[in-house]
Amino acid sequence: MKTVINPAKDSWPGLLKRPTQSVEDIEATVMSIFRDVEKRQDDAILDYTQKFDGVRLKDLHLSDKEIETAINDVPEELKAAINHARINIERFHKAQLGSEVELETTEGVYCWQEKRPIEKVGLYIPGGTAPLFSTILMLAIPAQLAGCKEIVLCSPPNAQGKLASEIIYTAQLCGVSMIVKAGGIQAIAGLTFGTASIPKVYKIFGPGNQYVTVAKQLATKFGVAIDMPAGPSELLVVADRSANPSYVAADLLSQAEHGADSQVILVSLDLELLVQVEHEIQEQIKILPRKHLAKVSISNSKMIYLDSQTEALDFINAYAPEHLIIACADPGYFIEGIMNAGSVFVGHLTPESAGDYASGTNHTLPTNGYARNYSGVNCDSFLKTISFQKLTKEGLQNIGNTIELMAEAEGLFAHKNAVSLRLKDLNSDEN
Amino acid sequence: MKTVINPAKDSWPGLLKRPTQSVEDIEATVMSIFRDVEKRQDDAILDYTQKFDGVRLKDLHLSDKEIETAINDVPEELKAAINHARINIERFHKAQLGSEVELETTEGVYCWQEKRPIEKVGLYIPGGTAPLFSTILMLAIPAQLAGCKEIVLCSPPNAQGKLASEIIYTAQLCGVSMIVKAGGIQAIAGLTFGTASIPKVYKIFGPGNQYVTVAKQLATKFGVAIDMPAGPSELLVVADRSANPSYVAADLLSQAEHGADSQVILVSLDLELLVQVEHEIQEQIKILPRKHLAKVSISNSKMIYLDSQTEALDFINAYAPEHLIIACADPGYFIEGIMNAGSVFVGHLTPESAGDYASGTNHTLPTNGYARNYSGVNCDSFLKTISFQKLTKEGLQNIGNTIELMAEAEGLFAHKNAVSLRLKDLNSDEN
Repeated sequence: MKTVINPAKDSWPGLLKRPTQSVEDIEATVMSIFRDVEKRQDDAILDYTQKFDGVRLKDLHLSDKEIETAINDVPEELKAAINHARINIERFHKAQLGSEVELETTEGVYCWQEKRPIEKVGLYIPGGTAPLFSTILMLAIPAQLAGCKEIVLCSPPNAQGKLASEIIYTAQLCGVSMIVKAGGIQAIAGLTFGTASIPKVYKIFGPGNQYVTVAKQLATKFGVAIDMPAGPSELLVVADRSANPSYVAADLLSQAEHGADSQVILVSLDLELLVQVEHEIQEQIKILPRKHLAKVSISNSKMIYLDSQTEALDFINAYAPEHLIIACADPGYFIEGIMNAGSVFVGHLTPESAGDYASGTNHTLPTNGYARNYSGVNCDSFLKTISFQKLTKEGLQNIGNTIELMAEAEGLFAHKNAVSLRLKDLNSDEN
Repeated sequence: MKTVINPAKDSWPGLLKRPTQSVEDIEATVMSIFRDVEKRQDDAILDYTQKFDGVRLKDLHLSDKEIETAINDVPEELKAAINHARINIERFHKAQLGSEVELETTEGVYCWQEKRPIEKVGLYIPGGTAPLFSTILMLAIPAQLAGCKEIVLCSPPNAQGKLASEIIYTAQLCGVSMIVKAGGIQAIAGLTFGTASIPKVYKIFGPGNQYVTVAKQLATKFGVAIDMPAGPSELLVVADRSANPSYVAADLLSQAEHGADSQVILVSLDLELLVQVEHEIQEQIKILPRKHLAKVSISNSKMIYLDSQTEALDFINAYAPEHLIIACADPGYFIEGIMNAGSVFVGHLTPESAGDYASGTNHTLPTNGYARNYSGVNCDSFLKTISFQKLTKEGLQNIGNTIELMAEAEGLFAHKNAVSLRLKDLNSDEN
């Protein structure tokens, strides 16, 4: 890792920078696949699945047999673990379903807010090097709690035309209403336009490679909402002398193994810790099966010594990390002051993997600095807020004149008239 | 208005369609202005202001004198009205600031959620035919309640280089921290990149013409979030025999006067009402100062008779109106069943103008069917949710094995190791 000691503030922009990603050049490819799926529907999806996933499917759906086999395939021990995680995630997300907001703003003017589910949602679960069934928990559980009617999961089949058993099992467990064997751009296009096999949805969630990311961005041009802009995963650890170098190294590596483009940063308030962590990383990395990925991302990553908590907090807020571990004796200063972060892990016994799997918080989080302006996925991501208002006679009499004056000042006389007509009737009723 | 009696379901897609808007062709213009502002900063903004607003400004900011004059200029009666509206909007939005979510999901596993403000936000207020100062109330009040540190308002100057006094007064009243005399694409570009006169912001809110809309979309490619995709304003009134035709007509016209592209739809459960409303519209439109706009949008609009509440509700949910007025004797069925709408006005005495100005609800709402997947602006629009978790020894011991099993099944051994290392230490401590 690159080590930087007390960097001057004017060098921060360079340190805060994520590895740049150019997406412009794949937009044309993505658009052409969208157009093709819009036109040729399932035929196009089957063709692209053959091309990109290397398998000619007969059916994009799973047979009952496939589902049954998958459920039987998952070891009982893993099922129990998934269920344990499900319970925690369900508890924490259920607690987010707030109560209605209801108020009489002026006598006779009743205003309230209700949350209603987004009726149709699409969940994208990548295939690739590992079956990321944990993301199904993170997306399907809040979708189900929110009350979404159709929860459609898309995931690319392997060369045998199969999905991982863990994916099928977890989807069944969490109320997914349809599983589709399709991935990549073609899956996002299917969810955007709808086909015979894939329902058109209103919002698409979930991680993916750069093709999926660009496809999700393009989907927004066709009226579909998306959870958030996606980028490579990130972790920033802020640590002081109380930190255990071996834990810090393990946490940094757990992020680094995600992919060669993962970002890890250590902000240390202690100089010696830098050396110890570096040493621990070199030791621990040796035995990792995914060390080829971890090595690349570790070599791009930074260890930064800052000699004050204030500077450290400023740096963290300027970076806006997806994951923040506070490995400090007194984490209160950072908890209090953090403005921009996706998910925060407090103390020496709270590794990022706790939140990735089982603490109960969501692991679908804003990357690439988007923690400045986006929340991670939570129950609200699957709901819309609708406002309601009802005026009584007194209510209209109490705010009618205010509306008339403001409408007139904005030059909107029909707005004024809608009130004046009613007020006139009310006043003549009273005489 | 076009009248349709009991349309068959297969003809609904045509009835539900909004007037199509092509934006593709202005993207290149918008991009070139963005690039120019990024490069030439304030100079570019001053040049485009001269070109589009017809005035060469010396300074994009207001002088103290201008602010003072503006505040003195607004009549006391209007000030009182604006303050009355402010109080209601503040009350309703304050009630939205929910309490923290905090939970022990498993013994020793503490999870909580905190909302933190988006630190820098930009509010766009159009100039044009009328000074829409009411939108400042709708954006600045929740921004201030959320705790946003920088609230930057951009609005185009008139040919004399001035902003409307009502805009300046309302901005001062609602805690806007900077007012910038800039509009259109150049203002959005300024908020996106930051210049000497305009701070770079993290999220941009507010309505605008198609240039502003496309500019906001483009801003999202540079890391800025936006409130929602925008389109022309819409109103759907559902009415039964109990409705007052004159009120219904006034409500439809209040929407129609916004612009020639506004959409109004009447869904009536009573045949006679259609005729009566049509007649009232023809009478009331005569005296409107903006009748030239209202006439065009009324002529594009539809009156639809449906003979069952079920069909009517299905139609409304399929249309997903920005504004919905329920002018029915028993509104409960629609309140209960509405899934997709921005803001709902209940009963015969609740005109849309109440919510536009003073009931307390927000008037920045999803148009063009986006009520299916977006909320209107509310306090949450100015906040992000951050998750926190803290595990005690018991907590880690309780969920550690679950994390290990799941990480291993996903092939992420460093994730597992971050837990195993700690568990090993805890277990050896105990022996």
